[in-house]
Amino acid sequence: MLREAVYHVAHGSYAYPVGPDRLRLTLRAARGDLKRVAVLYWDRYGSSPTLTEEMSIAAEDELFSYYQADVQLATKRFGYVFVLDDGRQTLFYTEKSFFEDLQPNTQFHYPYIAPGDLWEPPQWAQGAVVYQIFPERFANGDPENDPPDVEPWELPPTRTSFKGGDLRGIIHRFPHLVELGVEVIYLTPIFASPSNHKYDTADYYTIDPHFGDAEDLRELVALCHSHGIKIVLDAVFNHCGSEFFAFQDVLEKGRQSPYAHWFNIEGFPVQTDPPNYETFAHQIATMPKLMTQHADVRQYLLDVAVYWIREFDIDGWRLDVANEIDHEFWREFRRAVKGVKPDALIVGEVWHEASDWLRGDQFDAVMNYPLQHACFDFFAKGTIRARSFASRLAKVQVNHTHAVNLAMFNLLDSHDTERFLTSCGGDVRKLALAAAFQLTYEGSPMIYYGDEVGMVGLTDPDCRRGMLWDEAEQDRELFRWYQRLIALRREQPVLRTGRTRTVWADSITNVYGFVRFQGREQVLVLLNNSPEEQRVDLRQISWPGRKPRQLRDLLADAKRKPAEVVLEPYGVRILA
Amino acid sequence: MLREAVYHVAHGSYAYPVGPDRLRLTLRAARGDLKRVAVLYWDRYGSSPTLTEEMSIAAEDELFSYYQADVQLATKRFGYVFVLDDGRQTLFYTEKSFFEDLQPNTQFHYPYIAPGDLWEPPQWAQGAVVYQIFPERFANGDPENDPPDVEPWELPPTRTSFKGGDLRGIIHRFPHLVELGVEVIYLTPIFASPSNHKYDTADYYTIDPHFGDAEDLRELVALCHSHGIKIVLDAVFNHCGSEFFAFQDVLEKGRQSPYAHWFNIEGFPVQTDPPNYETFAHQIATMPKLMTQHADVRQYLLDVAVYWIREFDIDGWRLDVANEIDHEFWREFRRAVKGVKPDALIVGEVWHEASDWLRGDQFDAVMNYPLQHACFDFFAKGTIRARSFASRLAKVQVNHTHAVNLAMFNLLDSHDTERFLTSCGGDVRKLALAAAFQLTYEGSPMIYYGDEVGMVGLTDPDCRRGMLWDEAEQDRELFRWYQRLIALRREQPVLRTGRTRTVWADSITNVYGFVRFQGREQVLVLLNNSPEEQRVDLRQISWPGRKPRQLRDLLADAKRKPAEVVLEPYGVRILA
Repeated sequence: MLREAVYHVAHGSYAYPVGPDRLRLTLRAARGDLKRVAVLYWDRYGSSPTLTEEMSIAAEDELFSYYQADVQLATKRFGYVFVLDDGRQTLFYTEKSFFEDLQPNTQFHYPYIAPGDLWEPPQWAQGAVVYQIFPERFANGDPENDPPDVEPWELPPTRTSFKGGDLRGIIHRFPHLVELGVEVIYLTPIFASPSNHKYDTADYYTIDPHFGDAEDLRELVALCHSHGIKIVLDAVFNHCGSEFFAFQDVLEKGRQSPYAHWFNIEGFPVQTDPPNYETFAHQIATMPKLMTQHADVRQYLLDVAVYWIREFDIDGWRLDVANEIDHEFWREFRRAVKGVKPDALIVGEVWHEASDWLRGDQFDAVMNYPLQHACFDFFAKGTIRARSFASRLAKVQVNHTHAVNLAMFNLLDSHDTERFLTSCGGDVRKLALAAAFQLTYEGSPMIYYGDEVGMVGLTDPDCRRGMLWDEAEQDRELFRWYQRLIALRREQPVLRTGRTRTVWADSITNVYGFVRFQGREQVLVLLNNSPEEQRVDLRQISWPGRKPRQLRDLLADAKRKPAEVVLEPYGVRILA
Repeated sequence: MLREAVYHVAHGSYAYPVGPDRLRLTLRAARGDLKRVAVLYWDRYGSSPTLTEEMSIAAEDELFSYYQADVQLATKRFGYVFVLDDGRQTLFYTEKSFFEDLQPNTQFHYPYIAPGDLWEPPQWAQGAVVYQIFPERFANGDPENDPPDVEPWELPPTRTSFKGGDLRGIIHRFPHLVELGVEVIYLTPIFASPSNHKYDTADYYTIDPHFGDAEDLRELVALCHSHGIKIVLDAVFNHCGSEFFAFQDVLEKGRQSPYAHWFNIEGFPVQTDPPNYETFAHQIATMPKLMTQHADVRQYLLDVAVYWIREFDIDGWRLDVANEIDHEFWREFRRAVKGVKPDALIVGEVWHEASDWLRGDQFDAVMNYPLQHACFDFFAKGTIRARSFASRLAKVQVNHTHAVNLAMFNLLDSHDTERFLTSCGGDVRKLALAAAFQLTYEGSPMIYYGDEVGMVGLTDPDCRRGMLWDEAEQDRELFRWYQRLIALRREQPVLRTGRTRTVWADSITNVYGFVRFQGREQVLVLLNNSPEEQRVDLRQISWPGRKPRQLRDLLADAKRKPAEVVLEPYGVRILA
């Protein structure tokens, strides 16, 4: 037995409550090393095990198998040890070490499921279909408020160009969103700022005049809500824009400014070229970094966060550059936001391993870039194959609680990446396959505006082209594909909130398959990421629940015996 | 290379700031598997490494070696990968996987050292000598306030007996504490309660009348502070006593009581025998569990915590049964307590792996029972030998930041365990050796009242005997040994705040040795946990810093060449 591979810790994603007296435990071991794993458990005030639960493999990456089981105790206080059997040896794995037999006072403890520790992201956000809008490029609903010198909508954008998109445009084009079937819209920043992206806020309390005004936002929110759609805005609190009043005051008054400590300034007078103050990234003079260790800076930003919820009834915040602000700020942010709207959603921009923000005290979820990278490598570039893809997904999955995974913004691309169809070399079959994955896998699929009609573009600024509204130029077949998958997702609660298990990962055929499951519901998704027809023998599928006697093809709406299925090149089957 | 053993995550004790632009990184690998480990790092907004730091082994347990290095960047934003060389193969270990060469966009990220994330326990608490007092048994300073039917001081206590100890007694016996040289006193609960241990609080706002009154506490605090001694009280917030007004109100008014939701009651009327409400441990009717998920319950308890600091200037709280209260309560607790006294100490009672509470948002430290168990097994019982002892210490050490380790209450015993001398079978040489370890190792050595004069006793109630004040019965030699070690610790800042590296762990001779180091200071401690004389060749010691040319024996105050030293049976050498 490879003891060095065995890992468990009694918190985080390895031990978390899934109910008032129910705990989900995960044990990691070397992949394929163990034959059987069980957890022995008891009320921790007792001295020896009273209950046993067999664990099953919930996920596997290239090195490890992750075993999972739920255990339940009315007293909510768990002591437990794992029993590991590799066929030659049985060992007890405890908090202290490995033992040949049970040893007193060595067990792991999950001390108590306190009601105050039960948390999950807002239910509406778990598995919802999200649509990301970059307002300057989505639709120009009111040419009256356009900035001077707007460029033609169809021209490739530059980093500084304007096209006149606005809130009125979103309102006008709302039927497109409803038709598509989205459940949440997320707008990149809309507050007053000199740029087209508006990540350099000049005024956190004003809608950018080129985007409209407060009444437009009010109307948009009402429109969303009347369709049961939630709306999430972008909070840019890591830095402000250089036109922000506080920074302007420091520019003017130097160290005498009451806002001097809001920034990290190397010396006075403040210089902007090059900046002698801390900024976002490398010396971006227009984005001075805000010093959130100071209570007054925190209070200002928290007031902003609360204001737009309380006054405009928005449903949540996406947090820009969230990982460069201190954790304590985000804890206060969560209290403030949830205090005014308990089911508000908080989604951080963190491109990397993010578990430190997802412990219940800070964010509900993050932009799922690790999954995006996996999709990019597997579907778009083909640089990894099915088994590696499964490994990459497994790593994301085991790193968070199930409820957090459901709320993750699962994106294929965004305003900060190349368009996925471009990454696919324009091969729409690959995008369609990736979308089928995205829209059936666990998480909140986030569609970047225009992907659904086949928009292309290299990375910023090219990925921020004006939305393609001319139906003749849109890929209507692709749009119908998105529609159909979203409709399916909305019909099948198991696709929204079910757990997920990889059941097929064949690097030779490059077919990847997983089952979503919940209660008695099971949906099998098979994705053929190859240009050849592939066959999968359904009898070889290891179902998480009972093996189904008959399967329905949810896309073809036909019934079939669980025998062999044929997958067309880049084809998908969804079977239940 | 054993890839399954390799572990790093960019937060917690594996990546934490030790300065405004300085990060401490830890990498775990299979013990002895690697020849060289380095970290390549750069500003994360750049694309490839610019700096290299070799890592060295900071600790080893039975399975793993833990490599550590500090890295520094003025921009405070770290991207990094590890280079692992096992002599046959060199691999790059990244957030995504292992690679044969550098791969773009695979690095770990420590996104930014935000000033708001820099935290450590109060400086005064890092490495301070703590003395734990069980007030009912320490000294009876005022027989006037004794409970009825106090038993003779010398009689073995029962679970319910009283002996009349009080705050006045601590005041009278203060010279003993000063003579010993302690720097912090921690009192188990002193608030009104019917029991001798007072963990069943009747009134959080009143000193138990048998212990004295508010003026006595005020006097004691002033006395402490006039000697530069801090005083920590015991917060029992997991449960109250059944005499607590809120529970009494529920007993009286049933579900009509405005306090009914403060408890988890199965049905009305409330019954106490057996209790039909949730209690501490198993149906302890006198200790109803408090429901801290409710804001009014939280507020009540937080007000208590703040009151005794604000009004009486106490220096911190030890938190009873801390791991059965929700994390959010403790976050609010920390904000409230640090809000009124920024350098107040918060120490949780958690007997097991406690990292989930030690991330900067909840506790400063915990009662270090994992270390206590290791000392019990190694020094008292001899069931583990030097190498296992080193492993057990390593596991504790790598689980926390250095500053947290310094503040851990390192105890040999407490009011909840057998007396350590009893565990040693009465062999005072073993206790003396363990005390030498405790008083030179990293952490805050916590001395349970009376250990220093050779008190014995089985577990509760026997470990709570009346303090031995008769000098004829005290082990004065032992007392002088404690005095000397404490004095040495207070003279040598490196023993207080230095880092620690195990340099000797020989399971044949059973000699264990470690070096404390800080700047240029290095102190070597060698402990012979065997009944035979043992020799250590100092030339074989691998010093964390420069190899010293000459060493001073700090206990003998003699200089010596770094050659062989002879350790007497159960002997100790402290060399600098």
